[in-house]
Amino acid sequence: MSYDQLPLKIALLAGLDAGLFERDVLLSWHVSEPGIRAVLLASELLEDFTRAGLSPRLFDSGLGLSIFRDKSTRTRYAFRAGCNLLGLMTEEVDESTSQIAHGETVRETATMISFLTEVVGIRDDMFLGEGHRFQQEMAVSIEDSHRAGVLMHRTAVLNLQSDLDHPTQSLADLRHLTAHFGGLERLRGKKIAMTWAYSPSYGKPLSVPQGIIALMTRVGMDVVLAHPPGYELVGETLDAARGFAVQSGGRFSVVNSMADAFDGADIVYPKSWAPMSVMHRRTELLRAGDTPGLAALEREALDNNARFKDWECTEPLMKTTKAGRALYMHCLPADVSGVSCAAGEVSASVFNRYRHDTYREASYKPFVIAAMILATRFRDPAAVLDRCLQVSPSRRHE
Amino acid sequence: MSYDQLPLKIALLAGLDAGLFERDVLLSWHVSEPGIRAVLLASELLEDFTRAGLSPRLFDSGLGLSIFRDKSTRTRYAFRAGCNLLGLMTEEVDESTSQIAHGETVRETATMISFLTEVVGIRDDMFLGEGHRFQQEMAVSIEDSHRAGVLMHRTAVLNLQSDLDHPTQSLADLRHLTAHFGGLERLRGKKIAMTWAYSPSYGKPLSVPQGIIALMTRVGMDVVLAHPPGYELVGETLDAARGFAVQSGGRFSVVNSMADAFDGADIVYPKSWAPMSVMHRRTELLRAGDTPGLAALEREALDNNARFKDWECTEPLMKTTKAGRALYMHCLPADVSGVSCAAGEVSASVFNRYRHDTYREASYKPFVIAAMILATRFRDPAAVLDRCLQVSPSRRHE
Amino acid sequence: MSYDQLPLKIALLAGLDAGLFERDVLLSWHVSEPGIRAVLLASELLEDFTRAGLSPRLFDSGLGLSIFRDKSTRTRYAFRAGCNLLGLMTEEVDESTSQIAHGETVRETATMISFLTEVVGIRDDMFLGEGHRFQQEMAVSIEDSHRAGVLMHRTAVLNLQSDLDHPTQSLADLRHLTAHFGGLERLRGKKIAMTWAYSPSYGKPLSVPQGIIALMTRVGMDVVLAHPPGYELVGETLDAARGFAVQSGGRFSVVNSMADAFDGADIVYPKSWAPMSVMHRRTELLRAGDTPGLAALEREALDNNARFKDWECTEPLMKTTKAGRALYMHCLPADVSGVSCAAGEVSASVFNRYRHDTYREASYKPFVIAAMILATRFRDPAAVLDRCLQVSPSRRHE
Repeated sequence: MSYDQLPLKIALLAGLDAGLFERDVLLSWHVSEPGIRAVLLASELLEDFTRAGLSPRLFDSGLGLSIFRDKSTRTRYAFRAGCNLLGLMTEEVDESTSQIAHGETVRETATMISFLTEVVGIRDDMFLGEGHRFQQEMAVSIEDSHRAGVLMHRTAVLNLQSDLDHPTQSLADLRHLTAHFGGLERLRGKKIAMTWAYSPSYGKPLSVPQGIIALMTRVGMDVVLAHPPGYELVGETLDAARGFAVQSGGRFSVVNSMADAFDGADIVYPKSWAPMSVMHRRTELLRAGDTPGLAALEREALDNNARFKDWECTEPLMKTTKAGRALYMHCLPADVSGVSCAAGEVSASVFNRYRHDTYREASYKPFVIAAMILATRFRDPAAVLDRCLQVSPSRRHE
Repeated sequence: MSYDQLPLKIALLAGLDAGLFERDVLLSWHVSEPGIRAVLLASELLEDFTRAGLSPRLFDSGLGLSIFRDKSTRTRYAFRAGCNLLGLMTEEVDESTSQIAHGETVRETATMISFLTEVVGIRDDMFLGEGHRFQQEMAVSIEDSHRAGVLMHRTAVLNLQSDLDHPTQSLADLRHLTAHFGGLERLRGKKIAMTWAYSPSYGKPLSVPQGIIALMTRVGMDVVLAHPPGYELVGETLDAARGFAVQSGGRFSVVNSMADAFDGADIVYPKSWAPMSVMHRRTELLRAGDTPGLAALEREALDNNARFKDWECTEPLMKTTKAGRALYMHCLPADVSGVSCAAGEVSASVFNRYRHDTYREASYKPFVIAAMILATRFRDPAAVLDRCLQVSPSRRHE
Repeated sequence: MSYDQLPLKIALLAGLDAGLFERDVLLSWHVSEPGIRAVLLASELLEDFTRAGLSPRLFDSGLGLSIFRDKSTRTRYAFRAGCNLLGLMTEEVDESTSQIAHGETVRETATMISFLTEVVGIRDDMFLGEGHRFQQEMAVSIEDSHRAGVLMHRTAVLNLQSDLDHPTQSLADLRHLTAHFGGLERLRGKKIAMTWAYSPSYGKPLSVPQGIIALMTRVGMDVVLAHPPGYELVGETLDAARGFAVQSGGRFSVVNSMADAFDGADIVYPKSWAPMSVMHRRTELLRAGDTPGLAALEREALDNNARFKDWECTEPLMKTTKAGRALYMHCLPADVSGVSCAAGEVSASVFNRYRHDTYREASYKPFVIAAMILATRFRDPAAVLDRCLQVSPSRRHE
C-alpha cells in the first residue's frame, strides 16, 4: 500500500506550480508542464486516499454541474464520481427540459448556473469548430460575472470532451501509463502507436487521438500517428504535438500504415474517427436540416470507411509490437470484431486479453477529474490534502 | 464584509415571529409581515455565511424534491443550490418516467415522496386555475399523512411558480431592492413600475407581475401596474395589492400607459405576460386536444400582442424615470430587441447597461429558497444559525 | 419511543450471521434466514434512529446508482431516500441518454459505473426470463472486476424488482406486518391471502405475489395463493414457497377462489398480475417489433381479464375475514373501483378505510433498502450502528 508514501507525494505536489487555480481545463496544450504533473500526482494521491479508506472530502456543500451535448456513460459517471469524492453534489443541466435552447444567451446561462457551483463539466464534441468555442464562451462569461462581483467565486469549466481535445481521457490514459510502466520517467522514449482503426459506424469525434498526440509528446514519448489518407486531424493539434516533441526530446511522426505504427511499439491505441471533411459537411447539413443529405453523407462515409477494413488490431499485428507484448489501450466502448460488430477496430482475441487493462485505464478518470477540480478550485492543493491526512477522516464510518 | 454584523442580524431574526414553521410557502400574501421579513433576513444571513466561507449546513441527510411541470433553468438551479447549501440532496420527480400521470391520486403521491423529504418545490404555472390548486392539494395531503402518523415530519411545500404567484422570484427581487437601496426602510415611497412589455411569444405566465404587485405594496412602495387593455391580472392579486398598499401606507394604481408608469419611477420592471382570457381558452383547448384551435389561438394572441409593439423599454423612456437612472429589473430571460428577437421587451442598449444588475437580481434566489426551507423546517431559525456561527464549520476544507 | 431499546436491538443484530457482506440481494429465497432477520432488524433500527433524530450516516461520500427499465415513483424514491439516509449520493443510469443500449456489453458497463459506487439498484421487470438474468449478469461482472483488482471494492447489486422477485417490497411488507402485529413470532400461523384481483390494465409483473409467497412462508404463516385458472406463478417461486412452508412449520396452498382465500384470513393482499403465457408472448412480440400483434394480445388479455371482474376486494368479502377485520395490503398504486377505474382490484370503501395502512406499508421501503445496503456493504452492521449511537450525530443541526 502506498499509504506511507502519501506525505512524500504531498511534498512533491507542493513543489509544483500548476497555475490552474481559478482557471479552466479546456485544452491540455494550454496547461503548463507543472500543471499536467500536478493533475497526475493529485489524481494518484486521491486514489491512494481512497484505497486507504480516507475521505478527501474538501467541500461541505457545493455543486458540480454537467452539460452533455452527446451521449455518455463513462465520462458522465466519472464526473459524478469525481465530484462526489470531493463532496460536491452533481446535477445535469438538461438542455431539452431547460431553457438554454430557447433564445437565452450562453453568457446569461453561464452565470445563472454558477452562483453556488464549483465546477461545470461540458461535453460538446458533435460539431467540429463548435464544442471548444462553446466551452470557451462559458468560461469567459463566468470570468466576466466573477469580475463584476456577481459570482462570489470563479467557477471552473472542465472540458469533458470537445471537438478539439478530451483532456480527462488523455490524462487518465497518461495516469494509466505511469501506473503500468512505473512513473513518468519510464515513458521517455517509449513508442506509442495512436492509429485509426476501422469501424462500421461513422461520425466518431477526433478528440481522443488529438488529445493523445498532444499530451504523449510532452512526456518524451515516441508518438506515431497512423491513419488512411483523408483521416487527418485538426492542424492545431498536429502543431502542438510537433512542438512538444521538440521541447521534450520525444518524437512525433505521421504514417499511413497501421503496420508501420505497430512495428516495435510499446503501446498501441487503435481507434476509429471520422474524416474532418465529413464532420464539417455533417455540421452544415444538420444546420440546414437536410435529412436526405445526411443519409447520403452517412452512406458515402461508411463506404469510404469500408475501404480500410484491414485497419484492425489483430493478433498477427500485435506480434509485431515490442516483444509481441505492447499494451493495448482504448477509451471504450471498442468495436470488437465478431462481438459488437461483424468487423471492427480490434479482434475479439486481442480485446479479451486486454479487457481488464482497458477497464483499469477507465478507472483513473474519476480521480483525474477530481484532481482537476482540486487544482482549479484550491490555491494550495497540497496543503489541502495534507490537512486531510492529518485529520484522517474515513470514507466509511466503520 | 458583513461578518461582524452576523450576531446582530441573528438577534434581529430571533425577534421575528415568522409563523412559517411546519407550514408551506405557496402565496406570499398568505405569509405574515414578520414571515416576509424573516425570509429576507435569513436569506441575507445565508449570503453572509457563504461569503465568509462558513457552511450553513443544517441537514446531515434529507431530500429536497422538485416537480417541474414547465421548463426551467434558473429556478431549477436555484432550488438545487438552495437545498445543497443546507445539506439536502435534490431529486426531481419526473412525471414522464414516474407513475404520477398513470392514475395515481395526488394524495397518494404526495405521501410516497415525502417519507424522508424535508421540502417539495413545485413549478406548475401553465394553466390558470390549476397550478396553485395542485400545490395546495399536495400540501393538504402531506399534512393529512403527517397527522395520521404516516410521515415522521411535516414536509414543506414551496411554490416555485404557480398560476397565481412566484414567491421565490418576488422575494429575491425584494432582497435585490433592499441590497441595492440599503434596506427595507429605504424602499418606502419609492415608485416601482411593473409594466407589461411586448414580446413575440405568447402564453407567458402572469405570476411574476402578480407576485410583484402583491409583495412590493407591503413594504410601502408606490406600485404602478401598467398594461394594455385586455392584459388584466387575476383579481385576487389586485385585491391583495390594494389592501396591502392601504395597510403599509404605500400606493397601488393601475394605468394603461407605459410612459405614465415610467414617469419618475425609481425602479422599472417591464415584462411580457399573456392575457388571462387567452390562458383560460388555451387550458380548454389543451384539455380538448384541439391542435388547430391552439394554433389559431396562438396566431390571434400574437396578432393582438403586435398591436402593442411600442410597449418596449427604450432609452428615451428610461430618460423619463427618476433622474433618468431608474433601476431596471427582469426575472430573465428577457426578450431583448435585436438580440433574442427582432422587437421585444427591452432595447439592447438598456439591457446591456443593466445586465449585471439582472444577474445580481437572480443571484439572490438560491438564498431566498434556502431561507424558506430554514423558516418552514426549523422552529427557531435564529438559534440554528447562531449555533452554526459558534461552531464555524467551513464550506471548503482549506 | 424506542430510543431506549436501541442498544438491545443492536445486540440482537450482532447475534445474526446475515451472510450478506459483499453479496447482492437479488432473490429473497437465496438469502439465509438470519439474513432476512438481519435486514428486518436493521430496517427497524434505522427507523428508530431517524425517529430519534439521530443520523445513521455511514458514508462520507459514495454513490448509489439506479437503473430503471420500467416506470417507477415509489421504488425510485425509496432507493434515493435509503441511499441518502446513509450518505450516498444517488444517480440514475439513463439508458436512453447513455451508451448502454449502443453495443456495449453488460460486463463492461457494470464495471464502468462501479468504480466509486457502493450499490447499484436495478428494476427490470418487463420481460419474463430477462430481468433476473440481467441483474445476475451485472453482479457477476462486478464480482469479476473486483477479483481482477479493477474495482477497489465489491459494489452490491440490489433487485428493485425483477421478473421473479421484488424483495424490497416483500421485506417492507414483512416489516409492516411485524410492526402491525407486534413482532415476527406473532405472525406464526396467521393466514395471509395473496390473491389475484381484477384490473382493467394488463401486463402487470408477477414479482409481487411471487415475492410474497416465497417470503411469508418462511416465517411460519399460512399463505394462501388464489387466482383464476391461467394466472399461475413461475414454478421456481411456488417451489420455494412449498419448501419454506415445510421448513418453517407454516402452510402454503393454492386455490382458485378469492372467497376461499379471504375466509378467516388475518391479512389480505388482493392485487392484479398478468398471465405468464401473456408475458411470454408479449416478450416475443416486442422482440419482433410486431405492433399489430401486441395490440391483438392486449385486447385478448383484457377480454380474458374481464371474465374475472368479480375478483374484487369488497366489503362483503372483507366481512368473511378474521373477525371481519383482516389487514388489507397493497404495494400501490391500487386500481380502486370508481376512483382510478370503473371496476378494479378493490372497492373505494375498503381502500379508503385502509388508505393510511397502505401508506404506512410503503413507508418502510426506504429503511429496508438502507438496511440491505448496510448488510451488503459492512462486515459488521451492528458495530457500525453502535458506533453511530455512541457518537450520536444529529440528522438536523438544531
